[in-house]
Amino acid sequence: MRQHSIPETMKAAVMKEPGHILIEEQKVPVPKADEVLIQVMAVGVCGSDVHYFEHGRIGRFVVEKPIILGHECAGIVAAVGSSVTRLKLGDRVAIEPGVTCGRCSACKEGRYNLCPDVQFLATPPVDGAFVQYMTIREDMVFPIPDHLSFEEAALNEPFSVGIHAARRSKLAPGTTLAIMGMGPVGLMAVAAAKSFGVERIIVTDLEEVRLDAARRLGATHTINVRNEDALPIIRELTNGQGVDTAWETAGNPKALQTALYSLRRGGKLAIVGLPAQDEIALNVPFIADNEVDIYGIFRYANTYSAGIEFLSSGQHDVMTLITDRYSLEDTQKAMERALHNKSGSLKVMVYPNGMQ
Amino acid sequence: MRQHSIPETMKAAVMKEPGHILIEEQKVPVPKADEVLIQVMAVGVCGSDVHYFEHGRIGRFVVEKPIILGHECAGIVAAVGSSVTRLKLGDRVAIEPGVTCGRCSACKEGRYNLCPDVQFLATPPVDGAFVQYMTIREDMVFPIPDHLSFEEAALNEPFSVGIHAARRSKLAPGTTLAIMGMGPVGLMAVAAAKSFGVERIIVTDLEEVRLDAARRLGATHTINVRNEDALPIIRELTNGQGVDTAWETAGNPKALQTALYSLRRGGKLAIVGLPAQDEIALNVPFIADNEVDIYGIFRYANTYSAGIEFLSSGQHDVMTLITDRYSLEDTQKAMERALHNKSGSLKVMVYPNGMQ
Amino acid sequence: MRQHSIPETMKAAVMKEPGHILIEEQKVPVPKADEVLIQVMAVGVCGSDVHYFEHGRIGRFVVEKPIILGHECAGIVAAVGSSVTRLKLGDRVAIEPGVTCGRCSACKEGRYNLCPDVQFLATPPVDGAFVQYMTIREDMVFPIPDHLSFEEAALNEPFSVGIHAARRSKLAPGTTLAIMGMGPVGLMAVAAAKSFGVERIIVTDLEEVRLDAARRLGATHTINVRNEDALPIIRELTNGQGVDTAWETAGNPKALQTALYSLRRGGKLAIVGLPAQDEIALNVPFIADNEVDIYGIFRYANTYSAGIEFLSSGQHDVMTLITDRYSLEDTQKAMERALHNKSGSLKVMVYPNGMQ
Amino acid sequence: MRQHSIPETMKAAVMKEPGHILIEEQKVPVPKADEVLIQVMAVGVCGSDVHYFEHGRIGRFVVEKPIILGHECAGIVAAVGSSVTRLKLGDRVAIEPGVTCGRCSACKEGRYNLCPDVQFLATPPVDGAFVQYMTIREDMVFPIPDHLSFEEAALNEPFSVGIHAARRSKLAPGTTLAIMGMGPVGLMAVAAAKSFGVERIIVTDLEEVRLDAARRLGATHTINVRNEDALPIIRELTNGQGVDTAWETAGNPKALQTALYSLRRGGKLAIVGLPAQDEIALNVPFIADNEVDIYGIFRYANTYSAGIEFLSSGQHDVMTLITDRYSLEDTQKAMERALHNKSGSLKVMVYPNGMQ
Repeated sequence: MRQHSIPETMKAAVMKEPGHILIEEQKVPVPKADEVLIQVMAVGVCGSDVHYFEHGRIGRFVVEKPIILGHECAGIVAAVGSSVTRLKLGDRVAIEPGVTCGRCSACKEGRYNLCPDVQFLATPPVDGAFVQYMTIREDMVFPIPDHLSFEEAALNEPFSVGIHAARRSKLAPGTTLAIMGMGPVGLMAVAAAKSFGVERIIVTDLEEVRLDAARRLGATHTINVRNEDALPIIRELTNGQGVDTAWETAGNPKALQTALYSLRRGGKLAIVGLPAQDEIALNVPFIADNEVDIYGIFRYANTYSAGIEFLSSGQHDVMTLITDRYSLEDTQKAMERALHNKSGSLKVMVYPNGMQ
Repeated sequence: MRQHSIPETMKAAVMKEPGHILIEEQKVPVPKADEVLIQVMAVGVCGSDVHYFEHGRIGRFVVEKPIILGHECAGIVAAVGSSVTRLKLGDRVAIEPGVTCGRCSACKEGRYNLCPDVQFLATPPVDGAFVQYMTIREDMVFPIPDHLSFEEAALNEPFSVGIHAARRSKLAPGTTLAIMGMGPVGLMAVAAAKSFGVERIIVTDLEEVRLDAARRLGATHTINVRNEDALPIIRELTNGQGVDTAWETAGNPKALQTALYSLRRGGKLAIVGLPAQDEIALNVPFIADNEVDIYGIFRYANTYSAGIEFLSSGQHDVMTLITDRYSLEDTQKAMERALHNKSGSLKVMVYPNGMQ
Repeated sequence: MRQHSIPETMKAAVMKEPGHILIEEQKVPVPKADEVLIQVMAVGVCGSDVHYFEHGRIGRFVVEKPIILGHECAGIVAAVGSSVTRLKLGDRVAIEPGVTCGRCSACKEGRYNLCPDVQFLATPPVDGAFVQYMTIREDMVFPIPDHLSFEEAALNEPFSVGIHAARRSKLAPGTTLAIMGMGPVGLMAVAAAKSFGVERIIVTDLEEVRLDAARRLGATHTINVRNEDALPIIRELTNGQGVDTAWETAGNPKALQTALYSLRRGGKLAIVGLPAQDEIALNVPFIADNEVDIYGIFRYANTYSAGIEFLSSGQHDVMTLITDRYSLEDTQKAMERALHNKSGSLKVMVYPNGMQ
Repeated sequence: MRQHSIPETMKAAVMKEPGHILIEEQKVPVPKADEVLIQVMAVGVCGSDVHYFEHGRIGRFVVEKPIILGHECAGIVAAVGSSVTRLKLGDRVAIEPGVTCGRCSACKEGRYNLCPDVQFLATPPVDGAFVQYMTIREDMVFPIPDHLSFEEAALNEPFSVGIHAARRSKLAPGTTLAIMGMGPVGLMAVAAAKSFGVERIIVTDLEEVRLDAARRLGATHTINVRNEDALPIIRELTNGQGVDTAWETAGNPKALQTALYSLRRGGKLAIVGLPAQDEIALNVPFIADNEVDIYGIFRYANTYSAGIEFLSSGQHDVMTLITDRYSLEDTQKAMERALHNKSGSLKVMVYPNGMQ
């Protein structure tokens, strides 16, 4: 194993039980032959982290013992296992957080996000990235150029969801797109759509601060659904035809229905957001009569290289998303901030090895 | 114009108002330059015909004046317009009933079933095929081989829906398919799936007579949902994984939910049947988590040549669908039979120029 | 028919025989019910126009009687037929020059560029656009925004070839693209690739003036193959992997071979340029071993709306292509310029109703 | 590790140098945790085995030390590693011979046949299947039903090439297909096409014995190109249009040219066969003008489950291919037979654990 001088112990932010994160001193892990050790430099707080923090579970995934949260992360290669070839010490890198098996039919067909045996960071019982050092398999680690910040690299994770939605819904330049919900995933989806050459992006949200950020990222028309009814506006903006494609990212039943009705005949709908409730009423005759395509979106696959290239191009002002910054010691505060300031904070970022 | 000896007048079955069909004597129409005159030999009664007969409307299409119903039809070329080149007198033919504009963006993109200006037989205010002679544009008319009966050729219309669903849902050999609802569309969908090389076809219905027909057409497992719960059976038949693809053809909310839940991760759902109600509760987190694709199906496009080839191959016993036969004079009875014997009759057929 | 005040006669540049274009006074044509009359404002000289001018034929298309050339055109709607609905007098428009039948299987499948009955402007025996007024079917005519010049709108024709190549070869953001040949089609292909979000575009040509234009349009690396060997440079620029996609636009056998060899495993090759000779030696084991996809490109389909949107976005400096400008009276000179100054002229433009 | 009673040593057919195979006594290998031990029951001789036997190399793969050939194989699970879950002792199985890395971009995108680190049986320096026992990673091993013979299961390997060609060239029922070359790969390609629902399959070869086998497998028209010119016949069989799709499986330049010219406009060509020479003249303007798609085919991916299902359906008489049978001791003779009787032998089969 090749390595830089690294300490024997490190700090880790461990959620002992939902709502309670303590800083512990742990041994720095040692990478296996096909792994690297990452000095973690930036970790974004994701809505799923906040959900585990608040509720202790998401669907079938239940927090049953202490867990380290955080999976939107970037850092520096601090040690490499004996068989590692693609990376070297000191590489600045983005981390793809789902370690797949590579052997099931989902993996072999290129849909590894559906791998039943994936080990996904910060999904119980797998520990995440709110630590100073972590090990991960070599192929999950993607070098970034010098001019890309660690924060931007960490944002490649929610960005990947947008890229995946774009590919699944066959987004092409020249199409008109509506995106419902301008949380971090929705905002990064705006950036993804822009990278796909889409020039007409209509977005909705309840919060002006989010709509402002959307405009900075490329949205061409913003609708505050607290004040306005989205559907007639979208129809008017599209000469009464409806948009080619709509993405729902908020997990909001009303927004999902609006997304569906906003489509032209032959339009495409991507369902990105997870509603809190299971059953949502959808207009099925509308789907059939108009030959709508609907695509469920779960995480992403094969997006990291493209995402880094898009972020590195300089066309996206994604730093505009980062509203709150915390050290690792303040991870508890970071989580509480994300939990209690949903209308004001966009992306809360944690810096396990100090803020540069 | 070239033509056989044809009469000056003919009989037509005109629905004067919903529920009342009268036989009228009408002038035999004269084809335009790019049209042919068809001596209509067989016309299937479709669920939409029955719906107009019973309710006088389907969605935005309202019967406001007398109309001739019937659009699943086949016949003989009896006269050809001056510019017709693809057909000749005496050709035995199947008729594709939707005359498209060829100039809108839907037509130009190959999705002519979404043409806003389509003239579709028996959809108000366009007259249909319960007549002895009708004219139609040349490119809607497809020659059939001698050994294919007019009834089989008429069945190419509902068959086309199945072919279109197969293409839209990317049906491939080796996949496992569940089809909910074994009405004529569902039954022809079984045949379509078989033509696409699918060998594991699980079907559901409430009526044994339909499940029997499904088995004759290629279904490998039938579930009578009057007696059995489909979902656990489908799970068991697929080693707990779920099917690759499911089609709902019945317009039944419960069947649609079962179709969705029957899918494996990454599965595909085609919505073929039109529910009576607009809003149907669907499990949206299930769609997102499992990356389900959902495809609305509206009629068909570019299916007629393939359909004729499949029907001509002799691998499908589609004549098994034809349970009731009427002359044109008895079109009223044919409609009533279709309306009142839904559990017993599969396909009711009308013969405008006599039963052979 | 609604119309502006229009003259009874007009000037037309008629090629009486290859190499000889005369200005004739002709009657201004009258649009049929579904046609519009276009006051032609700008017409680009295409390589195919030059080829007919020089050789009198392209493949099976032979100039056997006087013909009006020119098919890259834009203008103003001067009169509309009685059934026209999509356009009104005074609309500034781009013209898609291939009037398709809308009824053959190619048209119905959305590949209308393969329509055997297409009437394509300036392809014998169909007259083209080197006239002051021309009629054309309504659906071939696409309004442009005020800020788009007629020249830019005329360039939508060669641009469409690039858009079509992008779609056929499944071009996506994040891919690396090599384009061989920086004639007008190659240059517009650079612009098309940029519209598709591609950020790494390597191009080759023999002429510096063309490589300069390519850089202005978005090429990120230019190779003058008069001085340099393209293949090792492309390999080096792609870390030895090769590009994802390559387009050959020059019709040059050597460039085609380089394009093929420049690909990574699983790469895609679009053949856009037409070589003068039929048989070209290709490395077939390379194609098989590397699972290359090769796509022949013939004209385009369904590109005009998207092309106008891309050109209107302001991201492309396509006016950089227009090197020579002529009045209709000087069409002979325009053709000679295009013929004899291939290394210096990029796009020669003719203005049938005066240069603004 | 769980295992049946298995011997300590076994026989292996080792090619000491090209042309010379000796039977050696070797230790039975021990499976790793994620591997199984296979008792090899049937191994087909592939053209590549014969090529290594005759020439000692294929392209960049050179036989530099003794090697065991054979990769089309099936057998019985004789022992399972400690972490194996999908298989159990006694399972009758087909073996997919390429062990992929699961971590490169090709693997992650679902095109694992392009994995640069694949360990492919009988490709230097990886040993193959002419042995009594072999170990292989669990996910390469696919259970077969009782009624499928080991020989049929071994044929799933060349069958997979046909399935992969069918998928890559988007083969659909209703299309017309020409297959050039009726060696084992071509013959199994006929079977694959039949499984994809294709009913019009025109095939060519020089040998009547192969054309006879093709007819038994589903070819609807056979052309002996020793006596007949294929192109005019194919044109006539398709009403002058040409076929929708053509596959070249023989590696013959003339056959490849015929395959190309046999296509209709918009047709698709799959290149399956590897020509001995690199450069082959192809009509490039034909490819461009007709918008031909060409797909290179290299091995296969994700075909084994589907292949086993197709072979198990009973619709294919693939045993018709097995013309010669040898014990493991006679592997040298098997290779010589395959080498010297190319016109008479179709598939030569070796039985390492005795012929049943």
